[in-house]
Amino acid sequence: MNAIPQSEAVRRAPEAMLAALRDRFGDRFSVAEAVRLQHGRDESPYPPMPPEAVVHVLDTPEIAWVAQLCNQYHVPLIPYGAGSSLEGHVLAVHGGICLNVSKMNHVLAVNTDDMTATVQAGVTRKQLNEELKSTGLFFPVDPGADATLGGMSATRASGTNAVRYGTMRENVLELKVVTADGRIVHTGTRASKSSAGYDLTRLFVGSEGTLGIIAEVTVRLYPQPEAVSAAVCNFPTLEDAVQSVIEVIQMGIPVARVEFMDLAAVRATNAYSKLQLRESPLLLFEFHGSPQGVQEQAQAMQQITAQHGGMDFEWAERPEDRSRLWTARHHALFAGLQLRPGCRASTTDVCVPISQLAHCVSETARDLDRASFPYTIVGHVGDGNFHVLMLLDPDSASEWDESQQLNRRLVARALEHGGTCTGEHGIGLHKMEFMQAEHGPEALALMRTLKHAFDPHNILNPGKVIPAA
Amino acid sequence: MNAIPQSEAVRRAPEAMLAALRDRFGDRFSVAEAVRLQHGRDESPYPPMPPEAVVHVLDTPEIAWVAQLCNQYHVPLIPYGAGSSLEGHVLAVHGGICLNVSKMNHVLAVNTDDMTATVQAGVTRKQLNEELKSTGLFFPVDPGADATLGGMSATRASGTNAVRYGTMRENVLELKVVTADGRIVHTGTRASKSSAGYDLTRLFVGSEGTLGIIAEVTVRLYPQPEAVSAAVCNFPTLEDAVQSVIEVIQMGIPVARVEFMDLAAVRATNAYSKLQLRESPLLLFEFHGSPQGVQEQAQAMQQITAQHGGMDFEWAERPEDRSRLWTARHHALFAGLQLRPGCRASTTDVCVPISQLAHCVSETARDLDRASFPYTIVGHVGDGNFHVLMLLDPDSASEWDESQQLNRRLVARALEHGGTCTGEHGIGLHKMEFMQAEHGPEALALMRTLKHAFDPHNILNPGKVIPAA
Repeated sequence: MNAIPQSEAVRRAPEAMLAALRDRFGDRFSVAEAVRLQHGRDESPYPPMPPEAVVHVLDTPEIAWVAQLCNQYHVPLIPYGAGSSLEGHVLAVHGGICLNVSKMNHVLAVNTDDMTATVQAGVTRKQLNEELKSTGLFFPVDPGADATLGGMSATRASGTNAVRYGTMRENVLELKVVTADGRIVHTGTRASKSSAGYDLTRLFVGSEGTLGIIAEVTVRLYPQPEAVSAAVCNFPTLEDAVQSVIEVIQMGIPVARVEFMDLAAVRATNAYSKLQLRESPLLLFEFHGSPQGVQEQAQAMQQITAQHGGMDFEWAERPEDRSRLWTARHHALFAGLQLRPGCRASTTDVCVPISQLAHCVSETARDLDRASFPYTIVGHVGDGNFHVLMLLDPDSASEWDESQQLNRRLVARALEHGGTCTGEHGIGLHKMEFMQAEHGPEALALMRTLKHAFDPHNILNPGKVIPAA
Repeated sequence: MNAIPQSEAVRRAPEAMLAALRDRFGDRFSVAEAVRLQHGRDESPYPPMPPEAVVHVLDTPEIAWVAQLCNQYHVPLIPYGAGSSLEGHVLAVHGGICLNVSKMNHVLAVNTDDMTATVQAGVTRKQLNEELKSTGLFFPVDPGADATLGGMSATRASGTNAVRYGTMRENVLELKVVTADGRIVHTGTRASKSSAGYDLTRLFVGSEGTLGIIAEVTVRLYPQPEAVSAAVCNFPTLEDAVQSVIEVIQMGIPVARVEFMDLAAVRATNAYSKLQLRESPLLLFEFHGSPQGVQEQAQAMQQITAQHGGMDFEWAERPEDRSRLWTARHHALFAGLQLRPGCRASTTDVCVPISQLAHCVSETARDLDRASFPYTIVGHVGDGNFHVLMLLDPDSASEWDESQQLNRRLVARALEHGGTCTGEHGIGLHKMEFMQAEHGPEALALMRTLKHAFDPHNILNPGKVIPAA
């Protein structure tokens, strides 16, 4: 029912290769079914496709060793971090070896003067922020899951803070990457800018393990803001909420976070996170700056929301209240799942120019209101990015088909208005069908040229990102 | 005396090809010596290397037509905008056709709601800002010269505003690019973020005409700040000035511009721009924001500068005073040239992590104090980027050699401290010798792989960026 695009058969690893891996990695190598199954699935709606074997690596030279071996035997190699992909990135659609980097979890360097940190690929965003606590600095990029920095780089992830601090595209300074043939490449510089040659860093960021395997990442950090203030504002309608955001962005108010939740998402969050949010469409705001600056931003914002029927701001002044609010927002996916026990979720991820946001969200809501399954809409609306969580009966082929038709109409709407099929989740398996429509045949051909030049035997996470020609 | 690296002979265009160009372009095609000479030089210290012919194109399909022809005959194709390169980008080191895009000077679309503009490659930054005047928006990237947006994209340019608004890397959203074989490729999206496949936009930005020819550019715009305030602060020593900047950046004060000038640069600027700046090392600041925010930033800044011997801030409150100040800063190169009439200039461009800036600038100044020619130092110090302008006797081989040795020591110092050989000017001819030291042999090999994949006949601005293997 949810067929996975498959252009070539599974490529099996020869026994000699598996023996070499077993020899080198001992009990960090496994072909046990439970281990393989666990590494063959993620948070996407696809059924598991287990790899042939799993290797836990401890450092970059080990990744290089495995890559050389896979390249020699033309066997697929699939990097695996936290397994929190929503798009089937880690599924072994052509078989091969799963390379688990979660034991590469050391923060290698924190440079407080330059506000940078260098971490191994398996460090998660929460772990990094925990280790930064005493420095007065923080790392802002925050997808819902506690993803690894390697995975976040590979999918060009973002989250609630991107409207102020940017995505992984803006926040990765340097990478250590292993190529298909096992070379270890350093890209970028810790300087804040450079015009020295091709931007390999930005090329690997967002390449989803298909051009190289990210082993180490140097990211920008930011000073903890002097003052932080968060607030909730309810609106009579979805349109009022979204229109407020558009004006905030167009005014250049440097809001740190502005998140939208529709009525269903608010209800689900109240139930799941034990909150008492007023049940109507709402915006969650956060302001960062000096005490005065934060106050000024909040005032400007209130003037705008008041013009769109925004009710009083409810302030979360204490850190623990803010933390509760944002944790609840990060759990919106899990909260949504509870609306239909036993369901599985399919999530959309379009992002459009801000001027098109109100139109796209409203049309999408109208389209969804005719659907035969429940849904919620949440969004990083300051970036023009919103998600529909479609809650499907796992045994219903017709609901799956209906959800995919809805997503196709949603993506078509986004592309027609100058947007993208994915703001932050990546292409994986799920969005390959949109690559040609979004980029056009010429750009897609260039991407194929790149893929072939960097990975001539197509061993790096094959069957993802670039659709079969 | 200033040998140009030359790994292969000049490739001459066959008569049939020149005839085809003449047929198609009429008087927009020229082989006149004066025209060729004018297109064979830029602001770099190299003697001219004229192309074999010059074509003025009017639109993207014309670029594609010329590219196809050059690719068919394996003849070099060199894009040319304002000719303001400092690194020899437009010199026809292997002969070929110069493609002048300066008549492609139309602003194609301004979207005020989304704050984006789409321009042809030949539009200059001043022209764009002139056309934006009535919209309340502006485009912040400002190299010294009135460069074209195509050239600025191709060199990943920045300028005085980058500390607040980013460089071309952050501000280009979409490109239309012509490939070596004459395909027209659209890259990117007007959405503020996307995770849809390989970042071709960032790959072409900074590729200096060697991977494709930039024909159209969509850039981000910003609201004119509500309040702007500029000030000059003098310091007893260079170190005091630089140390102040480091603390400003580390405190996270969102200064819009912070520029350093050494004593010699201040004197030159006073003479050239008829200003009465106090003659000691100084910082030029600009603050953007709300009236209160600007005041707050200025106060925070004054506290820091006072701790480093900073003298009183001299405010430039009126727009015309600010404009005079910044025009003077943009003319620092030309002002410097007047310090030694008849000289030619060689400019350096290192950029280092902010923590290394004081050390690198001081060591460089000490090194330069032993030089046999005059120099000035100016810098976009908020980014860790500074330039030495070395004023050389055009007839002295020993001064040239001395200046290049100084630059080599400067680059080695920058690289040793985690920096880059070029913050904003690009590699061109002049910095190819540093590519391996900066990136390492593995990353350089990947760049070669890229170049070969995108331009198998090596027709796109050959002999630039990537040193011969």
